[in-house]
Order: sequence, then structure tokens, then C-alpha cells
Amino acid sequence: MKNTPKGSSPFPELQGAALQQGLWGLIKNRNYTARLFRQDLSAALIVTLLLIPQSLAYALLAGLPLQAGLYASILPAIAYALVGSSGVLAVGPVAITSLLTYSALNPLAEPGSSEYLMLAILLALMSGMCLLLMGLLRMGFLANFLSHPVMSAFVSASALVILLGQVKGVTGIPIESGTLPVQLLSLVESFGQLHGLTLLLGLGCVLFLLVMRHFLVKWLLKLGVAAGLAALLARMAPLILLILTTLLVAFSQLDEQGVKIVGKLPVGFPELALPSLSNHWLLSLLPAAMMISLIGFAESVAIARNFAAKRRQQVNPNRELLGLGLANLVSGASGAFPVTGGLSRTVVNHDAGAVTPLASFLTGLGMALVLLYFTGWLYYLPQAMLSSVIIVAVLSLIDWKQLPYLWRYSRGDAWAWLATALGVLLLGLEIGLLLGVLVSLAAWLAKNSHPHMAIVGRVPGTEHYRNVQRFKVEVEPEILSLRIDESLMFANAIEVEQRILVELSNRKEVRHVILMGSGINHIDASGVEMLEQLNQLLDEQGIALHLSEIKGPVLDRLKRSHFLKLQTGKIFLTQHQAVAELTRVA
Amino acid sequence: MKNTPKGSSPFPELQGAALQQGLWGLIKNRNYTARLFRQDLSAALIVTLLLIPQSLAYALLAGLPLQAGLYASILPAIAYALVGSSGVLAVGPVAITSLLTYSALNPLAEPGSSEYLMLAILLALMSGMCLLLMGLLRMGFLANFLSHPVMSAFVSASALVILLGQVKGVTGIPIESGTLPVQLLSLVESFGQLHGLTLLLGLGCVLFLLVMRHFLVKWLLKLGVAAGLAALLARMAPLILLILTTLLVAFSQLDEQGVKIVGKLPVGFPELALPSLSNHWLLSLLPAAMMISLIGFAESVAIARNFAAKRRQQVNPNRELLGLGLANLVSGASGAFPVTGGLSRTVVNHDAGAVTPLASFLTGLGMALVLLYFTGWLYYLPQAMLSSVIIVAVLSLIDWKQLPYLWRYSRGDAWAWLATALGVLLLGLEIGLLLGVLVSLAAWLAKNSHPHMAIVGRVPGTEHYRNVQRFKVEVEPEILSLRIDESLMFANAIEVEQRILVELSNRKEVRHVILMGSGINHIDASGVEMLEQLNQLLDEQGIALHLSEIKGPVLDRLKRSHFLKLQTGKIFLTQHQAVAELTRVA
Repeated sequence: MKNTPKGSSPFPELQGAALQQGLWGLIKNRNYTARLFRQDLSAALIVTLLLIPQSLAYALLAGLPLQAGLYASILPAIAYALVGSSGVLAVGPVAITSLLTYSALNPLAEPGSSEYLMLAILLALMSGMCLLLMGLLRMGFLANFLSHPVMSAFVSASALVILLGQVKGVTGIPIESGTLPVQLLSLVESFGQLHGLTLLLGLGCVLFLLVMRHFLVKWLLKLGVAAGLAALLARMAPLILLILTTLLVAFSQLDEQGVKIVGKLPVGFPELALPSLSNHWLLSLLPAAMMISLIGFAESVAIARNFAAKRRQQVNPNRELLGLGLANLVSGASGAFPVTGGLSRTVVNHDAGAVTPLASFLTGLGMALVLLYFTGWLYYLPQAMLSSVIIVAVLSLIDWKQLPYLWRYSRGDAWAWLATALGVLLLGLEIGLLLGVLVSLAAWLAKNSHPHMAIVGRVPGTEHYRNVQRFKVEVEPEILSLRIDESLMFANAIEVEQRILVELSNRKEVRHVILMGSGINHIDASGVEMLEQLNQLLDEQGIALHLSEIKGPVLDRLKRSHFLKLQTGKIFLTQHQAVAELTRVA
Repeated sequence: MKNTPKGSSPFPELQGAALQQGLWGLIKNRNYTARLFRQDLSAALIVTLLLIPQSLAYALLAGLPLQAGLYASILPAIAYALVGSSGVLAVGPVAITSLLTYSALNPLAEPGSSEYLMLAILLALMSGMCLLLMGLLRMGFLANFLSHPVMSAFVSASALVILLGQVKGVTGIPIESGTLPVQLLSLVESFGQLHGLTLLLGLGCVLFLLVMRHFLVKWLLKLGVAAGLAALLARMAPLILLILTTLLVAFSQLDEQGVKIVGKLPVGFPELALPSLSNHWLLSLLPAAMMISLIGFAESVAIARNFAAKRRQQVNPNRELLGLGLANLVSGASGAFPVTGGLSRTVVNHDAGAVTPLASFLTGLGMALVLLYFTGWLYYLPQAMLSSVIIVAVLSLIDWKQLPYLWRYSRGDAWAWLATALGVLLLGLEIGLLLGVLVSLAAWLAKNSHPHMAIVGRVPGTEHYRNVQRFKVEVEPEILSLRIDESLMFANAIEVEQRILVELSNRKEVRHVILMGSGINHIDASGVEMLEQLNQLLDEQGIALHLSEIKGPVLDRLKRSHFLKLQTGKIFLTQHQAVAELTRVA
């Protein structure tokens, strides 16, 4: 089998091959029809409408001027469409990277200040460089070390941090940013600054969005709306809410009673400008840039893979790194902050019928039109509505049920989950993630250190050999057959040897030991050393050491060691052959 | 199978049970005969004679007053005999721990000064505490993480460092201690201070010892001496040389011509005294104390295990930790430095016929007699002779052949060896060891990340399924049978899924995928998540996902996950049953 997925799509569908070469491939592909174009166009329109409130909300979350959210939705989407390998992935501002941006920059500058904006731009550029570098060095595999429990806990805990931060937006209570205890303490201390009208508006928005999400589809279906359209309409709830709350504020002049509004957004594109660089900033932003790259990539490629598989396409991780890298570079160059592929918009894009990267390209153009002609319409939009969009979005990210599930399934994974979640909540995002990765590795090594070993016997009448404790099997008294269900490696070599010797000490009549290697996937140098020593010790007791069911690659490697020259016994293709030959001889 | 070796010896030999309870068990054991006592006594005598030059040499190596070597050979040997679980292990000063002591203390105080001695005592006490703590917390398994290549490289590189350090003793050239480049530079710079007479004496000693080691046994055998006695006599070469050189210096008055001699050693026991403690010293010595404990334990327990297996006995790692911990505590309390079990003396002890810990106990008493009555005899012993003992001892520890062997066998292990060796030589002992452990772990994870997978088919006429690329086998077109030769875990879950999808993309006719799990020893939470997702993706393509040959413990765990509820296919006991049933249905 090949080590890497092939470059071309394995499913000979219309747009398969073209997709693998990004938008350029598409343009050259003559099979792209007007019908497909209409699908891409309508998907782009719907995603654009959804993006208006979302992009503003994520800029708010990142602590940036709201227009930065619009900037982050134009060129990055277009850049990804040109290079990326997924036909449906929607790249732009998302919750987790916005939070990571905020948590990296908040200690360095005042949110909203021009220095803060400059640092956000720098962070986007550096993330872009990290991603491109990872792509060029083919280091996408690094994301695999973020195990499922670690990512799940990181997202859940981050969502909780985001949630608490947005309580400010829907209550007016100023909440200090920081770890969970800091946030909670600040919430309690400043509770007196609750702003009644903001609270009413905020709670109303959250309630509206939750009701729409959970019941609208059901209602629409009852009214006879087609299922696909109903789902799409339900996803448009934020846009409906945007219009409703803007009209409400505009006509009731709620802004004069202390409800914060978006206000005047600058029209048109910002000047493309690179921030002034200083080594000091570069060094202090580097860890955050690396973390945003890694997590953004891990999340994004998981989404892209999932949708690609649904469409029988393939995602090329290194092309993804280049696409996301470029997207972040142009995001920084256009005055915005780090971006990545987002789940909710990708779902909408897919449901709305997007077939090729052109949908993403057109979404970028759509957002450019919004920026040029429609920002004035957002003047009265209350910020509480944006906070409610964030709150409802991240509510679905919190998945506490993982912990009891993992606890039942595998303690090591549960510890990794707990370490990550508690680390993020109590010590900060970076430390939490690092802690989780370390606990994952330790849990894995601990598993490797205590291998499962089983004495096996023959299932009567067959050629199969199974655990004597689980099956009724036949054993020969002078043969000890042991199945080792683990690779032999430094962390377990000594224990394996000791346990074999202990088993032997209870069986004086044994003349042959057969190690059944169906579970041995590797034997490292410490493992070979152990086998050689075991072979010698058994030899001194007049016992021969045999191996059976050794896999091809393991045997190939053993041939390069001293073991085969020293071995007192034989190597048998199957356990059955081993027992048959040894009993015939005996 | 039990997880830990049993407490009692499995081999019903005379002293088996008693040995497991240390010297106390022995005293209660009525089967201990006068014949066995004579064996222990003669072994003790021979080891004591060998210990005289060795103990002085290792004190010299550790940068301590020579009598400290004698102190380190009395109470530690007795303490270990009372508690340890090996009947033959000889505990006392050894080369590696002496070097570790020197390298830890040399930056903190002037070797030979009273402050240096105080720190050495403190280091021994702290190492003792570390070992006892590891024993009480049952953390002996930590030593398993020092892989065979890492230990091999560490010992070889340390031996080279020791060797260069002792060039001073046999040439008179003052060589700065430190990393290899520092030593070499200093050797070149100070070459002018070569002392001819010392060089002559030193080279003579080294040559004598090498010749004795390599040829004496052969000569003695030719003279008709019994093989065992010949080997023992050859091991006594250092004692013979000690007598010869002492007489030579005494009668030729070489000390007046600049040859350094041992001089006057204090007679009798030092006062048992604890050094004054300060937090500053405790903190700066802690890393070295931990490292000495870990490496001392790893080396010592490997030796003890090897000899125990030869005698069909068992070693209890936690009892070893307690024994070595106590030995280091009493070493510190008696004014000496860290100790551990040494290979060469254990070999002599074993060859000389030691059967019980009483041999070790008597050795301690023998060294006490030397200290009380014979130190005056060592006045004229030239230090060059002690250096030659060290040089010849560590020469046999250098094993460069490991590297090409490892390179052939497994690149990851070879890199771990290289990282350790170069780290020790260029960056220092601690960093070298840490580097080696990290590279070992990374190499292991890298192996886990790229699993071997094989498409399997039936060996005609049998129930066995083998790699289609290695064997002539039969395959059914509508069934894709894939053997995954690795546990499913976070570092490889995504790659495994992708590779299965790629294989499927080339086989349109496949309706059933069977994952053959004989090589799957664990499935962690990320692995289950992958299986669930794969199951769903295949379902959408009308393909059923089956598992076969899943091991009991893995299946037990899977039952606690969601996978079995979602699975579209079945779980088969054997690959053959799976194929038989699926072809019958199809």
C-alpha cells in the first residue's frame, strides 16, 4: 500500500480531478456546466448572508474593530479557493482562532487600540508563514498528535471561556478576560453594572436563536416546506435576527438608552499594509502563531476530510497547509486576523449545493460587495445581537458527555481529556493544550509498558490457537505457547522477559517455548536484546525458544539482527505448524 | 498471567526461598551448610583483594580522598546484603556513578577540598533517599524507559570521558575536565607537561593489565591449571600489579622523582557525620542525585537479573531499590560517595563461588580489616597504577560496534544511540541522557504513526490469510480484507482511514471491508472515533465494515464504545469465518 493518499480523486465524478488542482483546474475543466455554476452561485449568496453577522461577531470576539471581520472574509476565502484542495470548505474567521488571537494579544496591548490591530495583523502573517512552512516541510502529520480527546476537550473548554467572555455583551457587565476563576470572580464583583435593557435584548436574541435552531425546521416541515430548504432557512436565523434587532434599535432609539451598537463602519477596502516588524514582537507572538496554525489546521483538515469523504473525494493535507497559509497571509495583508476553515459555514455551503471552490471565491466577492455598499445598513445593529450569535455558536461546541464516555472506554484518554480541559480553564489555552498532548503520550506509553500476554492452546479440531482463559482449548504439557499482544520495545522488554520466566517456573515439564507473534508489530533493539538474552537463559535450562506467526516486516528486520544466528529453536509460519512439528518430534 | 514476578523463587533449590528475604532469611534457613559457608567465605576473600585497588581507583575518579573508596566498600556492601534480593550482586563504588559524582560536583567545589567531600556525602544521601522513594512508590519501572541503545551509548560515551580524564594519571599532563572538546584541547595545550617517568610507569601498568586479561588464562590453561582457577587468577591481575608497583616505587624511591603516590591514608573509620544541609545545595544536587539513582539502579538491576536467571532465581525490583537506597544512605553516613552494583566484581563474586548475600557481608568485613590494619602498606602505591586500573576497566565498556549494528537493524534506535553518545560527549552527561530518552520516544511514536497494512488473501486449501504481496493467495473481488499491523491510536488513526479509503477507490466492486485485527493490540479513543467515522463513510457508499480476529481485551473495550451499535457489518472470530460467511451470503 502507498504511504500517502494519491494526488487525484479516486472517484471518477465530474469535478473530481479538477478539484484536486483548485480553481485553476476548474477553469480548465470543460465539464463545468451552467447548472453547476448556478449551484455554486446560490451557495455563495447564502453563505455571504450568513457571514455578515458571523464575521462581525468573530471580530468582536477577537477584540478587533468590527470591520476586520469583514476584511477577514474576503481575500482569505478567495485565496483558499485558488489553492486549497477541498471544494466545499469555507475559510474565514472562526470562534477558536478568534479566541486564540484574543488570548495571545490581550496581554500585549489594549483591545481596540491601533497597536492591538497591528499585532493581530502580524499574528495572521506569522500564522500564514508557519502554515506554509509546515506545508513545504510536509509536516502536516504534526496535527495527528492532537488526539481526539485532546481536541475535544480543548474545543469544549475554549467554548466555555468564550461563552463567559460574551456574557459581557449580553448583560453589560464588564468581565475581565483570563482563566475561568478570573472571569467568574470578575462577574460576581461587577454584577452591579448589569444593564437591564442590554440584558433583555441579549437574552431575547439568545432565546430566538436557540428556538430557531431547535424548532424552526420542525415547524417548516409541518408547513410543507421541503426538508433541504427548511434546514437552510433555519441556518439563516442569525440574518433574520440581524434585520429584526437593527430595525428595533433604529426605531426605538435604544442606543440612546445605553445599548451598544455597531455604529459607523469604514466603507471600502483598507490600505494593504505590512506592520512594522520588531524582533521583540516576533518572538512573543511565535508560540501563539504556531498554536493557531496547528489547531486551525487540525480543525480545518478534519472538516475538509469529512466532507471530501461524503463526496468521495480526497483531501491533500499539504495542499491544505498551503491554502490555509496563503489565506492567513492575505488576511494579515488586508488588515485582518488569523482565519481557518469553519464547520458551520462549511455545512451551510455544502447544504446550499456548493460543488466547486468557485462557491468560496464568489463568497469572497459577495463580502467585498457588502463592505463596499452595505456597511451603512449595519449602523444600528446592537452588539448584544453579535454576542448572542457567538454564544449560540459555541454552546454547540461544549461536549461534556465525552468525559464519562472516555472514562468508561479508556482511562488514559479520559485523563488526557481532563488534563486538557482543566489546563485550558485554569492555566490558559497554551498550557492546557501542551498538558493534554503530554498526558496522551504518557498514557500511550503506559499502555505499551504492560502488554497483555496469553497462554494459548488449540481450539479442538481447528488450526486456531486461543487464550486458555477464554476458550476451551488443548495444550501440550511440554510446550508453552505464549501470545504476546504488543510490540516488543524498550518500555516492556524487561517485563515481558520476567513474565515468561515466571510462567516457566510453574511448568517444570516444558521443553519448548513458542512465542506467538501475531500481535507483535515491531521489535526494537531493546526487544531483540531481550530475545537474545531469553534465548540464552532458556538454553541453559535445556529449553528451546521458537517463534510463530511472525509478520513479514518484523521477520525481515530480525534477519538483520544477531538473534536468528543464536536462536536455539525455529521460526514457524503458523502456530499450528509449530505445535504439530514439535509434538511429532517429542 | 500475573503482572509482576512472584515474590518467591520458582526454582526449588537449596537457598531459593531464603535468598528472597535477604540475609535474615538465610540465617533462619537451616539448610545453610558449612560447605556453602566455605564457598561464601572464599568468594568474599577474593572480592576483597580485588576491591583494594578498585575502590581506591574509583575514589580517584570521583575526585575524592582515596580512603573514601575504602569507606564506600564497607557499610554499603553490608547494608545491601541485609536487604537486597540478589545473592551475588557486589555493591560498592563503580566507574559510571563515580564519573557522575565527579561531573556533578566539579562545577560546585574544588575536587579534594573538604567542601567537595561534604557535597559528595550529601549526594550519596540524596541518591539513597531517591532510591528509597522510588522503592516505596514502586517506581522501579522508570528504569525501563532507558532503552538498550540509550544505556549502551551512555556507558560507551561515559567510558570515553573517563578514559580521557585518566590520561592525566598515566602521563602527568593536567587535563581539564568537561566535554570531549574541552578535554582534547586541554590535552594538546598542556602536552609539554608530560612526565616521562609517570608515562613509563602508566603505560607499563596498562600493558601489563591488558596482557594479563587477554593471555593469562590461555597460558595458565597450557600449564595445566583448572579453567575456573585460571579465570580467577587472571581477574586478580590488578592485585598482583598493585604489589609489584608498590615494591618498585618503594625500592627505587620513584616518588622523589615526581611519581605521585597514594601516601598516608588515615587509619580506621571516619566519624559518622551528616553534612550541614542547605536548600541551595539540595536543589543544585537534586538532578544529579536523581540521575545517579536511575542509572545506578538500571545498571545494577540488569546485572542482578542476569545472574539471578543463571541461577534460576528471581530479582525483585522494589527490593533492589530499597537495598541500593540503604547502601547509598550508609555510604553517605560513613563519609563516602554514591555506590551501586558493579559488573566486574559481581562476575568475580559469582566465579569465586558466592552462593548467598553472606559473601557480600563478609566482603564488607574484609574491607573493614583492610582499613584498620593495611592502609600503611599502600603508602608507596603509585597513582598511575590506579589510573591504569580505571583505563583498562572502562576500555571494555566502549562498544562502538553497537552503532553500525543498530543502523542496520533499526534507524530509530541508531538515532537514539547517536543522540545519547554525541550528547554525552559534547553537551554533558545529563543532557546526553535526556536527549537519548527523547529520541527513543520520538522514534517509537514515529513507528506507530506509519502502520504497516497488508491486503490479505487465503492461502489455498488452508484457513490462513496472508499478505497478497508475499504469498500466492486467493481473494474474493467483492471483499477487501485488510490486516492492520498496528494498534489504532491518535498518531495513526487518520492515516489508517485515508489509506483504507484510497485502497477502496481502486476497487469499485467491493461491498465488504474486513479489517483483520490480529495485529491490533489497543484501540484508543481516537481510534474508535476513526472506526465510527469510517463505518459511516462506507455505509454511505453501500459498503459494510467488518472486523475479524479482534483480541479479547480489545473487543471487551470496544463493547464499551458506541462503535458496536453503529457498525454496519459484523465481528468475526476468525478471518476465515468472515470470508466464508460473506461469500456464502453474496
